[in-house]
Amino acid sequence: MPSATIEMSGHIIDSMMLPRIFDVVMDLGGSFRVDEFQVGRNPDERSFARITVSHGEASGLQRIIAACQQQGAVQVDGVAAHIEAAPRDGVFPDTFYSTSNQPTAVRIGDVWVDVEDIEMDCGVIVEDGHARCVAVTDVRAGDRVVVGHDGIKVSPVERSRSKEIFGFMTSSVSAEKPKHLIIRELAQTMREVRAGGGRICMVAGPAVIHTGAGGHLGWMIARGWVDVLFAGNALAAHDIESQFFGTSLGIDLRDGLPVESGHEHHIRAINRIRGAGGIREAVATGMLRSGVMYEAVRQGITVVLAGSVRDDGPLPEVVVDMIEAQRRMRQALRGVELCIMCASMLHAIATGNLLPAATKTVCVDINPSVVTKLADRGSSQTLGLVTDVESFLRELSECLA
Amino acid sequence: MPSATIEMSGHIIDSMMLPRIFDVVMDLGGSFRVDEFQVGRNPDERSFARITVSHGEASGLQRIIAACQQQGAVQVDGVAAHIEAAPRDGVFPDTFYSTSNQPTAVRIGDVWVDVEDIEMDCGVIVEDGHARCVAVTDVRAGDRVVVGHDGIKVSPVERSRSKEIFGFMTSSVSAEKPKHLIIRELAQTMREVRAGGGRICMVAGPAVIHTGAGGHLGWMIARGWVDVLFAGNALAAHDIESQFFGTSLGIDLRDGLPVESGHEHHIRAINRIRGAGGIREAVATGMLRSGVMYEAVRQGITVVLAGSVRDDGPLPEVVVDMIEAQRRMRQALRGVELCIMCASMLHAIATGNLLPAATKTVCVDINPSVVTKLADRGSSQTLGLVTDVESFLRELSECLA
Amino acid sequence: MPSATIEMSGHIIDSMMLPRIFDVVMDLGGSFRVDEFQVGRNPDERSFARITVSHGEASGLQRIIAACQQQGAVQVDGVAAHIEAAPRDGVFPDTFYSTSNQPTAVRIGDVWVDVEDIEMDCGVIVEDGHARCVAVTDVRAGDRVVVGHDGIKVSPVERSRSKEIFGFMTSSVSAEKPKHLIIRELAQTMREVRAGGGRICMVAGPAVIHTGAGGHLGWMIARGWVDVLFAGNALAAHDIESQFFGTSLGIDLRDGLPVESGHEHHIRAINRIRGAGGIREAVATGMLRSGVMYEAVRQGITVVLAGSVRDDGPLPEVVVDMIEAQRRMRQALRGVELCIMCASMLHAIATGNLLPAATKTVCVDINPSVVTKLADRGSSQTLGLVTDVESFLRELSECLA
Amino acid sequence: MPSATIEMSGHIIDSMMLPRIFDVVMDLGGSFRVDEFQVGRNPDERSFARITVSHGEASGLQRIIAACQQQGAVQVDGVAAHIEAAPRDGVFPDTFYSTSNQPTAVRIGDVWVDVEDIEMDCGVIVEDGHARCVAVTDVRAGDRVVVGHDGIKVSPVERSRSKEIFGFMTSSVSAEKPKHLIIRELAQTMREVRAGGGRICMVAGPAVIHTGAGGHLGWMIARGWVDVLFAGNALAAHDIESQFFGTSLGIDLRDGLPVESGHEHHIRAINRIRGAGGIREAVATGMLRSGVMYEAVRQGITVVLAGSVRDDGPLPEVVVDMIEAQRRMRQALRGVELCIMCASMLHAIATGNLLPAATKTVCVDINPSVVTKLADRGSSQTLGLVTDVESFLRELSECLA
Repeated sequence: MPSATIEMSGHIIDSMMLPRIFDVVMDLGGSFRVDEFQVGRNPDERSFARITVSHGEASGLQRIIAACQQQGAVQVDGVAAHIEAAPRDGVFPDTFYSTSNQPTAVRIGDVWVDVEDIEMDCGVIVEDGHARCVAVTDVRAGDRVVVGHDGIKVSPVERSRSKEIFGFMTSSVSAEKPKHLIIRELAQTMREVRAGGGRICMVAGPAVIHTGAGGHLGWMIARGWVDVLFAGNALAAHDIESQFFGTSLGIDLRDGLPVESGHEHHIRAINRIRGAGGIREAVATGMLRSGVMYEAVRQGITVVLAGSVRDDGPLPEVVVDMIEAQRRMRQALRGVELCIMCASMLHAIATGNLLPAATKTVCVDINPSVVTKLADRGSSQTLGLVTDVESFLRELSECLA
Repeated sequence: MPSATIEMSGHIIDSMMLPRIFDVVMDLGGSFRVDEFQVGRNPDERSFARITVSHGEASGLQRIIAACQQQGAVQVDGVAAHIEAAPRDGVFPDTFYSTSNQPTAVRIGDVWVDVEDIEMDCGVIVEDGHARCVAVTDVRAGDRVVVGHDGIKVSPVERSRSKEIFGFMTSSVSAEKPKHLIIRELAQTMREVRAGGGRICMVAGPAVIHTGAGGHLGWMIARGWVDVLFAGNALAAHDIESQFFGTSLGIDLRDGLPVESGHEHHIRAINRIRGAGGIREAVATGMLRSGVMYEAVRQGITVVLAGSVRDDGPLPEVVVDMIEAQRRMRQALRGVELCIMCASMLHAIATGNLLPAATKTVCVDINPSVVTKLADRGSSQTLGLVTDVESFLRELSECLA
Repeated sequence: MPSATIEMSGHIIDSMMLPRIFDVVMDLGGSFRVDEFQVGRNPDERSFARITVSHGEASGLQRIIAACQQQGAVQVDGVAAHIEAAPRDGVFPDTFYSTSNQPTAVRIGDVWVDVEDIEMDCGVIVEDGHARCVAVTDVRAGDRVVVGHDGIKVSPVERSRSKEIFGFMTSSVSAEKPKHLIIRELAQTMREVRAGGGRICMVAGPAVIHTGAGGHLGWMIARGWVDVLFAGNALAAHDIESQFFGTSLGIDLRDGLPVESGHEHHIRAINRIRGAGGIREAVATGMLRSGVMYEAVRQGITVVLAGSVRDDGPLPEVVVDMIEAQRRMRQALRGVELCIMCASMLHAIATGNLLPAATKTVCVDINPSVVTKLADRGSSQTLGLVTDVESFLRELSECLA
Repeated sequence: MPSATIEMSGHIIDSMMLPRIFDVVMDLGGSFRVDEFQVGRNPDERSFARITVSHGEASGLQRIIAACQQQGAVQVDGVAAHIEAAPRDGVFPDTFYSTSNQPTAVRIGDVWVDVEDIEMDCGVIVEDGHARCVAVTDVRAGDRVVVGHDGIKVSPVERSRSKEIFGFMTSSVSAEKPKHLIIRELAQTMREVRAGGGRICMVAGPAVIHTGAGGHLGWMIARGWVDVLFAGNALAAHDIESQFFGTSLGIDLRDGLPVESGHEHHIRAINRIRGAGGIREAVATGMLRSGVMYEAVRQGITVVLAGSVRDDGPLPEVVVDMIEAQRRMRQALRGVELCIMCASMLHAIATGNLLPAATKTVCVDINPSVVTKLADRGSSQTLGLVTDVESFLRELSECLA
């Protein structure tokens, strides 16, 4: 029967690598034999396992090995990664290795080389002894692309040795939980990230403005708590609408009641900014004097407003080409260590697609399904909060003040 | 063709009585002829309409008349209400008039008599020239019950002449609205109700405790803002659990993380109170020294804890007989002018069943479906808020302080 | 006190025009006097009202008139529409008239001219005695744009004189309703639209494929029930994934269980189609032999795949420029009389933005909030269904077979 | 430092016992040393671990041991269970052992005795060498109750060695999954349970009737697929309303549209059944001739209708005392091997409270939060389906036909 030997080490029991490998082998109809097992005798000691996996057919064995790799196992006596040239611009070889968002290395000759800029659903290009992750839109004909599953090592983020707010996903999504201390610890994490030179990215949907939380977000930007802002046309348009008309989507932000003809306000606001030439110009000329976008321009942070097909207008700064928007977001995420997603689904998913698993992520939404969807990144670095976004940003601001 | 003449007066256009009557007649396959129409020439003047409705069949006409009555019309040349004796204890005559929660009068002889204690899905008993609403469980054999649709006058609550927070139902359920001013106006309404001698009822689910909002509710009770508290075993048990163990459903209320073996805490808390003989006794002996139930006992407000089949325990004060629980709630609601329902579905629906349409009602839940369901009472006296209950109670407390 | 006289006629009571006008005047702090009122004496007769509205300030009066116009009133002794030149490409004059999606006319000289291609949040351009609706992105410097509120007549879609499935919005969104007959009547509507030469547009999200309903949609396209298909990269990618691998987002469509490494399938499918040059080419060469996209290519229907920033790949046919995607969708919607939106939020909202109020629209989703959001178009031509999309498409197919 | 030695065996890695024990020790601030570890060398071989756990304080060590016990560990050199007499009727000793729903044994002298009728949040009574689980309401003064954590052995249900529909909880709740094959496999499970003499319990909410699925449920009862039916007053009342009036909560079941005055139908149906003396009598006299309750009476299955405080009426068969309702449900669940919960929250949670972890459970609801809540029973024997209940019951009936 076709078989192969795999090894893994680390906190392989409580980080779930070993249980998942047992699962994988059984689910794929294979069998395993544990050849060697050294258990970490105390919480800090690493464990080690060498296991022979087998399957009735060679193709089944290949599937098992590929799946075990994704859980952190490496094939013993494995060979180097295979490489093929990309056939055309924007097309990978048919059997390209499709990346996950976990830390990954490829074996070039006898050396394991870390894959740079890891991102899921991409390919790996090898060049000058370096390996880097590339989206299918960015591959060029002739690029040397890793194919198959040989010579791949994935290192899933391990369970922390101390109790912390990130990673208690299953238990933390509920709206029926106290959130005070969690928000306080998030503020503490923000301080640590900033102290360590890391960058913080905020992804925000228009409900931030609709709920009257724009002031809190603006304050956070003004005080330097946000390095990167991802949003769509709607957040910016309603923020500017609220500065010009006191409404958001036609709702009076003072009393929550609709204003007659208020539904026109956002398109009027957009038209006015288009007339000015853009948000930056509107700030420069004094047309726009406060709000989220105003603070972002003043503070000079990196902003990517990615368009969508449901946009009205849009505002001049909105990137209407989606490939270009992804490229700018990818670029802006370099160095980001914490990403806070507030009441956004489209932009939050887009951001999640681009982030490595190791980046700490906070997802806040009043809809539990959205939180579950966003927080399910195969990562223990995620914190989900089902709550009102205004309440969240208000408390977070208070903790940061 | 069978026909009848109906009349109505008041703000019959913008309170939707007339549009609905036109709808009803057309939907039931009938026809109408407007015989007389005097429109209110300004906002404060009342309108009047006399309309002849007709239908191909007498039974269809009866359905039309009955439906128009529910919208506020009265049959011209109508007769007095018909009355039949209840055949048995707990059983109405087959054709009993089934009540709505709108103000209702019945014609006894030539006199219109208001129905006391109006409540939906009940019958009307006539006795000594009085008419009162009675649940089917409480009717006695021989009681004189109104049957059919003759001699009934319903007076739907009319649209207010001024803009106010209650009644903007369709537009106010969204989580994507600013809530500050609405909560401030609710606090103002509470002050007015109390100043006028009206009572305030709070219906609260266990999420009030789980989210860490128990302190805010306890404060409101201690300061006299709550006259009646409706809840279930869970609210009381988790409140007491939080006083004894610092947890709610085993979740540490300081950090939101689960405590090992914490799931046992609520049943231990219940057992301890059962050992003491009840909540009141636990307060008297100093076993229970703080929290929602402690404040309710100290303040001497009316509390009804209605049981349910999913209860653990329950606590000794919980009314485990559902008919008895409804009777106590009905009794407690006398004089209540404002009812605030917080993160409860079962108890909030039960309360809504017992309330007249004219009572102001506020429904707060993080789930928009629950808010929609609760707020849909055929009444303009309802305010729905989709938000985090902790955030709501905190802000409301701040506005009342 | 500044005042003006407005008139309206039609089924102004049960179509809610009159009640809403009373509301509007009172909410805006104005007053009204009903000068003349002729009520339709029977269901088919039209009513007529002439009302003088007044407000303490001229600007308040203008707001009232503008709001009453949106409900179908016309100012007596009104003047023609005012026109200004657009200052720049892509910018309207500051006071441009912002359109609704209701049938609208503008008065040019003494003549009322219908606005062509009506769509909300746009402007109106007058040229050669014609008036047409134009998005802000498409206006050119010097175009003659209607400004202000004079000379505007809006004609809201009136309540149907017969009971029908469209327009019972408030009561039809619930998941707790029987849906058989409604789906049967929808099939009947589809037959009537087709018989009358109208076009049918389907907007579909990827859940159509995930739930295994791709076969039903493919069948409907093959049988000619769909003239226009709007979707995103995901629907097409998972449809093609399901043809190549038997999975959708890595889930086996036969048993609903995840396939090991299945998450790679969609990006492999996309890469393969990119290698072929496109979906059309993949069909031509026999690489793609079945499924929704295959049937759409074979049948030659109009397809717009609009991109989004969360897309993987994307497929070559996906329009990555959002302005261009909107233009193509706008073009494809000409002649569409029925639009069915299935389990899509982004694309359904985008389509709803482009549709006139008079187009019949069906919104199907398992999430009640999505249905509510989509169906709330200020139109009585909407039907919302909260249900499983697979179940819906299966039943609809059966009714059409 | 206080320490103790624990042991466990079985499929302790992939059934998550060992990973959870490592988690528990670290989360509680303790330490561990693995003294012996024999890993199952192939999927069928059992593993064994002996671990010394320690903590700075004796009380902390006790918490660790108690928590490890819940994951299946047993203390080496442990002592027999301690026993105390219940102080009063309805009250456990203060330190009573609070049960989980996992298979549990207590050590009496040197013998491990299985606890009968295991159910969570109860106590264990020892009598004549037997141990049984007892709710707090049913304990009597003087009963010998297990206290503390010594002498307890919990045996969590282990991961199945083969792939099956139950237990893939995390991945199966989504509405965006194909459900055909899962429903077919559920039908197969029902056949196996019945063939093996096991009983099947159905818990059903009123949406079964509202959605028009009553016919499917009635058919399943008539054909013997349901041994036990748990529901509330609403399911029975609307089922009978639908037989008498063709409506459910006033909605016409043929077309889904509201019937004028239809909201009265359910209370009229209830009143008529009250007049007849009960459902059974109504069937006997021919007043009730079809529907779910009719089939249940005819088939003679066990029915428990548990009341709630929001009930109208109720029907005579409804158990209005909650303690009594729980006792009847507990009794009816003896021998139940499969429990299907359809569109019910209250009754489903109540049933879940009473079920052992080993009972297979299926939760069906259109609301994902409900499914998540119900399916989260710390058990691998659960299957959650987010879908339309009518669609589910229709397909299940077809698979069983």
